[in-house]
Amino acid sequence: MVAADHVSLRRNNLSVVLRHVREMGSRSRARIAADTGLNKATVSSLVAELVERGLLREGLAESERGALGRPGQLVELDGSGVCGVGAEINVDYLAVTALDLSGETVIERRLPLDVAHLDPGTTMDELAKLILHAVAAVDLRGGQTAGVTLAVPGLVQSATGALKLAPNLGWAEVPVVEAMRDRLGHPAYPLRVDNEANLAALAAYAEMQIGPEDKIQDLVLLTGAVGVGGGMVTGGHLLRGGRGFSGEVGHMPVAPAGGTCGCGRTGCWETVVGLTALLNKATDPDDPVRDPSLDVEQRLAEITSRADAGDKRTLKALADVGSWLGIGGAILVNILNPDVLVLGGYFAVLGPWLKNPLEVAIRDRVIAPEGGGCRVIQSDLGFTAAVRGGAQISLDQVFLDPTLVGRESTGTAQ
Amino acid sequence: MVAADHVSLRRNNLSVVLRHVREMGSRSRARIAADTGLNKATVSSLVAELVERGLLREGLAESERGALGRPGQLVELDGSGVCGVGAEINVDYLAVTALDLSGETVIERRLPLDVAHLDPGTTMDELAKLILHAVAAVDLRGGQTAGVTLAVPGLVQSATGALKLAPNLGWAEVPVVEAMRDRLGHPAYPLRVDNEANLAALAAYAEMQIGPEDKIQDLVLLTGAVGVGGGMVTGGHLLRGGRGFSGEVGHMPVAPAGGTCGCGRTGCWETVVGLTALLNKATDPDDPVRDPSLDVEQRLAEITSRADAGDKRTLKALADVGSWLGIGGAILVNILNPDVLVLGGYFAVLGPWLKNPLEVAIRDRVIAPEGGGCRVIQSDLGFTAAVRGGAQISLDQVFLDPTLVGRESTGTAQ
Repeated sequence: MVAADHVSLRRNNLSVVLRHVREMGSRSRARIAADTGLNKATVSSLVAELVERGLLREGLAESERGALGRPGQLVELDGSGVCGVGAEINVDYLAVTALDLSGETVIERRLPLDVAHLDPGTTMDELAKLILHAVAAVDLRGGQTAGVTLAVPGLVQSATGALKLAPNLGWAEVPVVEAMRDRLGHPAYPLRVDNEANLAALAAYAEMQIGPEDKIQDLVLLTGAVGVGGGMVTGGHLLRGGRGFSGEVGHMPVAPAGGTCGCGRTGCWETVVGLTALLNKATDPDDPVRDPSLDVEQRLAEITSRADAGDKRTLKALADVGSWLGIGGAILVNILNPDVLVLGGYFAVLGPWLKNPLEVAIRDRVIAPEGGGCRVIQSDLGFTAAVRGGAQISLDQVFLDPTLVGRESTGTAQ
Repeated sequence: MVAADHVSLRRNNLSVVLRHVREMGSRSRARIAADTGLNKATVSSLVAELVERGLLREGLAESERGALGRPGQLVELDGSGVCGVGAEINVDYLAVTALDLSGETVIERRLPLDVAHLDPGTTMDELAKLILHAVAAVDLRGGQTAGVTLAVPGLVQSATGALKLAPNLGWAEVPVVEAMRDRLGHPAYPLRVDNEANLAALAAYAEMQIGPEDKIQDLVLLTGAVGVGGGMVTGGHLLRGGRGFSGEVGHMPVAPAGGTCGCGRTGCWETVVGLTALLNKATDPDDPVRDPSLDVEQRLAEITSRADAGDKRTLKALADVGSWLGIGGAILVNILNPDVLVLGGYFAVLGPWLKNPLEVAIRDRVIAPEGGGCRVIQSDLGFTAAVRGGAQISLDQVFLDPTLVGRESTGTAQ
């Protein structure tokens, strides 16, 4: 309720103009002034600074697009200037992606790696190489890296940048941000860490805000890998919980007769729906689809082709996982009443066999009529959801504070 | 991003001043102007209107409180002028309460009633009598009723004011707001309906915002009655879900071998932790503590005294319920990572026996270290939490839009 100072006022107005152009498309300065209530001289000065920072660029003149009256120069989002990078550590792969300001993919890589059987240092070395490769790709196109976000399958303390616990990696109390900062040579861009399911949920949520339909504000995303995580957006906000440890759906005690979990307990949901549970049911120990040094998408393609061919053992395993998926899914929908339940990771790949039992369970076991309106959808982001969410979080910071990207370091500065 | 019109601007400024005085205590007009950034003439005019509406009143002169400089007249919250009313329909009781603007209780009543075996019309007649009694008590002290909120143990469509489904009442598709409006003689004050666990969670949350400590922003409240509901506040906001059907924790499928639920399914959490489950385990069918026409607090006092006396059957039943409470509690804490899990309703009354097994389960079964920091507390609002939350929601509307309470109908109008 107190008046803002001039610096923060200017920063806020830069953000208002930048987000306005992102949402509404290319616009003349006069139109931006009319839409936002800012005066024309202020808008001209703000646009000049945003152009200088490589965030907006001059577009076509309005008359060329058929508008009436005196032609005005349009400004539009400059996608290429600024990129966000997301990088993921998971149980059997590393991944990285760079997205530019308009959401275009600049680079995307995944490296199969048996992380659970390596020491954290070696894994961090490998991930650092991937990140440096992505940053180099951004540099090569004359862009600027606005930030790097690390996605990890575990409990994260955002404030300190430490990974508190990731049972399926066998990691505890690893200062991932600090360790990565050293390996990247103490870069100028900000480095963050977040839970992979949170980032995947943000990526899915961002996708659902595009287009003219009513925007989804409540979703649950399940990341199916060796571990199972949940990312939840409620009322348009990521649900983090009191200490940031929300979404540990893989450890809901739902299967008292289940096997031992990576966390050491028995009966956790992921012991009956995680990728290991599926593989144990569907394959013999020496089956190559169990080999974590092969790419997970190739291994899943093999499972898919067996299921397509009607292999009884594979289909039985999928039905079993689907039925357990329904038990936990019904719990989540009863508690959270999401508009959509998004299947991510391996759940998305095997969606054709898993979606139906899940939908049946939601319809039958959720107290609200018609499952409370919850639809089950398969993410089309596959295993890239978390890295995309990570890249987006870095870009979101730029939309909130355009002064984060420097005038000097961009190619357009004078 | 578009400039507001004059009427909504004035309404917003009235709200800013009223909430400022609520939060900061009595204040001079000059101090309010300095704190809020509004100019002095505007503040004087706003304060005059708020006084006229019975929301603020003139207090002591500043010099009498030892302040320096020219004495200024202070204004303070006028608690008595405006009241909110909450009214609850539950399985074996009805309840009503009226709170004034400063949170003081004007009236509070509970009526034991075997609602599940009555038709909705008869129950609504009884509740209407309680509400009219509360409104009369507000009138008697020269106050004005700002609104009435109905609390129900089921799925609510806030927009239409209909109760969609309340399995333990045996009610479905009952237009409770419309039916109550008729019985109250179409009053001028707004009438709302909400889920009882949501309202109880809001009441608990409001209590935790008082005092100098760090404010809790993430809590889960469990309402223990015949049915079990959950109210969740995350990041300071009530979690309602996509269609407002969140918090149906009583129907999480956790006990495959459990009995038949009021909803017709088997294995719902409330079949092993609800009041009926406890009474079935602890007592014989003809035991008077099972009689829903007796007041629930008296019945629970009898259970308490048996447990205190060391009655084996009672203690065994409580241990059993506590252990199941832990299973569901661990699920909720793994998903939501609340700072506190609040035991409401009968769980609060029998807290001395239920709290420990729940705490043990959270510590053992939640993946985040130390249960993610979640503490278990017993609500001291008992069975009044939902009606207090209902009264508060009606008052909140006044803080957001002070023009809701009329100049004519208050005693202070000229």
